[in-house]
Amino acid sequence: MGGDFGPRVVLRGANIARKRYPHVEFLLYGNEKKIKPLLKRYLKLAKVCQIIHTDETITNTTKPSVAIRTGRQSSMALAIDAVKEKKADGVVSAGNTGALMALARLVLKMLPGVDRPAISSFIPSLTGDVTMLDLGANTECKERNYIEFSFMGSLFSKHILGLKKPTVGLLNIGSEDIKGHEILKQSHQIFQNTKGPFEYKGFVEGNDIMEGKVNVVVTDGFTGNVALKSMEGATKLISEYIYQGFRHSLLAKLGIVFVYNALRKLKLRLDIRRYNGAVLLGVNGIVVKSHGGTDHLGFAHAIGVAIDMAMHDYNQQLLEEFKNLDMETKKVES
Amino acid sequence: MGGDFGPRVVLRGANIARKRYPHVEFLLYGNEKKIKPLLKRYLKLAKVCQIIHTDETITNTTKPSVAIRTGRQSSMALAIDAVKEKKADGVVSAGNTGALMALARLVLKMLPGVDRPAISSFIPSLTGDVTMLDLGANTECKERNYIEFSFMGSLFSKHILGLKKPTVGLLNIGSEDIKGHEILKQSHQIFQNTKGPFEYKGFVEGNDIMEGKVNVVVTDGFTGNVALKSMEGATKLISEYIYQGFRHSLLAKLGIVFVYNALRKLKLRLDIRRYNGAVLLGVNGIVVKSHGGTDHLGFAHAIGVAIDMAMHDYNQQLLEEFKNLDMETKKVES
Repeated sequence: MGGDFGPRVVLRGANIARKRYPHVEFLLYGNEKKIKPLLKRYLKLAKVCQIIHTDETITNTTKPSVAIRTGRQSSMALAIDAVKEKKADGVVSAGNTGALMALARLVLKMLPGVDRPAISSFIPSLTGDVTMLDLGANTECKERNYIEFSFMGSLFSKHILGLKKPTVGLLNIGSEDIKGHEILKQSHQIFQNTKGPFEYKGFVEGNDIMEGKVNVVVTDGFTGNVALKSMEGATKLISEYIYQGFRHSLLAKLGIVFVYNALRKLKLRLDIRRYNGAVLLGVNGIVVKSHGGTDHLGFAHAIGVAIDMAMHDYNQQLLEEFKNLDMETKKVES
Repeated sequence: MGGDFGPRVVLRGANIARKRYPHVEFLLYGNEKKIKPLLKRYLKLAKVCQIIHTDETITNTTKPSVAIRTGRQSSMALAIDAVKEKKADGVVSAGNTGALMALARLVLKMLPGVDRPAISSFIPSLTGDVTMLDLGANTECKERNYIEFSFMGSLFSKHILGLKKPTVGLLNIGSEDIKGHEILKQSHQIFQNTKGPFEYKGFVEGNDIMEGKVNVVVTDGFTGNVALKSMEGATKLISEYIYQGFRHSLLAKLGIVFVYNALRKLKLRLDIRRYNGAVLLGVNGIVVKSHGGTDHLGFAHAIGVAIDMAMHDYNQQLLEEFKNLDMETKKVES
């Protein structure tokens, strides 16, 4: 029921995902009266769908604390319950991010040994997709969180992108040891003595994210969120510049037949829908957040991320990796 | 003597600035043996230049604490001394940022009533140039610093860009009051009761910077630095995408005569040299930091920023504005 467009985009997205992953079945949580008429448009999808009706929904203005107290019969909460009860392998929602995180943590609980969850997503870069986390789950982080994020992020990068030993960088304002605040400096020290499913490359800076200096960028949720959105803003500005350049030049308009393919390719590469589907890592279940404003293509991509994680048994693998994590590192005060 | 290219770029930049601002004279601090032969290439520039020789320089690896203790006879320190002694109206350096800040604070002191300095720069946006600060002077900030930055930034925007009453936004990870860490929330409250040479627009997010939602974006030096560099990385990635699109398409190559102007304009608009020259606001003197890797055009732009500030008597104006700042706001614990 979530997102700017509700079931319309969800169903159209699910129909695309169905074609890509023919073995997948869908449980649709929400208002049957709204879902059923829309589902009739997709005959093949309807065959692999089951609607679980509820009148209640979490809105975008519902506070996480309120969602936890009064929203347990909402479509979002019931969908998360399904993951808890193993009826579903994962949940995808375009709804309220704060409520989704709060409900997921409450119902699914954290994976044993993990202190805090992190929102993670892929970012395009000069050297391929970069995994970045945390993008907004934790305003502030401690040393232990950074270490855990590097495990979560590198395993994500390993399984979904197929990287053997991803490189990890800690986001800072300079590459020297003396840069940044105390917790970052401490974490940098701990990283140098931590063995994980990754190669630690030290501090990286904002420009290194899209330049692809490392495969996994680890940061707190405040910095990560600002960096991600700043890059989105830059993309929007440059796209507008390109558009203006062509609109204001008659010669450029004449030449558009020649450069059409080059521009189309650029548009495709800058298409943020291909990067839709942020994952809440660290909770005991697969939870994917689709951007509220995305369309069916974006939503289909978010479903794909959840399916990929389920097929790779991500959480079980993460628990295995955590067993190898040095006990001393685990004890870092959380 | 600073920057990746030393006096060569500085002199060529100064020569461009000389043409733009014929009334300006230059004091060149550094190694006479290196400067003199280069200066011979610019006869007109040489007439408005005076070389003040020193053997000592601050290198890029010199720690700020070491610069303060042992670098007082360096070209950087002597140039700052000249501002202190009113021999110069401002100093421009492409050298070590940390050392420049430390020496500037030590020699020039803060403006009376200002707690911490901020590095400020213009950023291109959909609605015109945005003033952003702090970009790296303070890893962490308190409420008072955010308030002061808004005064410094909006006055900068007012004088250099000619805006009557600039709008100010506080960088956060959401626009709701409950978002972000405690100090941001507190500052948000104080802003709503502060009268200044600006209109406070509340929280803004990363994408709002380049979308130009406000004229002045206020943030701490850690977040600001990461956001700025993230946007630089995005620009670099997209430029590479454009380049690749044209390189790989024969048709696009054929069409380049048509779109040449549109692309050239885009390149100009994305030219970061036009935004070179970060200002250290809050110190009692005009201090401009040029990017170490910039060329003569970028350095000329940084000189222009210093001249603009001197001509507008920025620091005196800031002091006047501070007088109007509510005493209660000033008393916010720093």
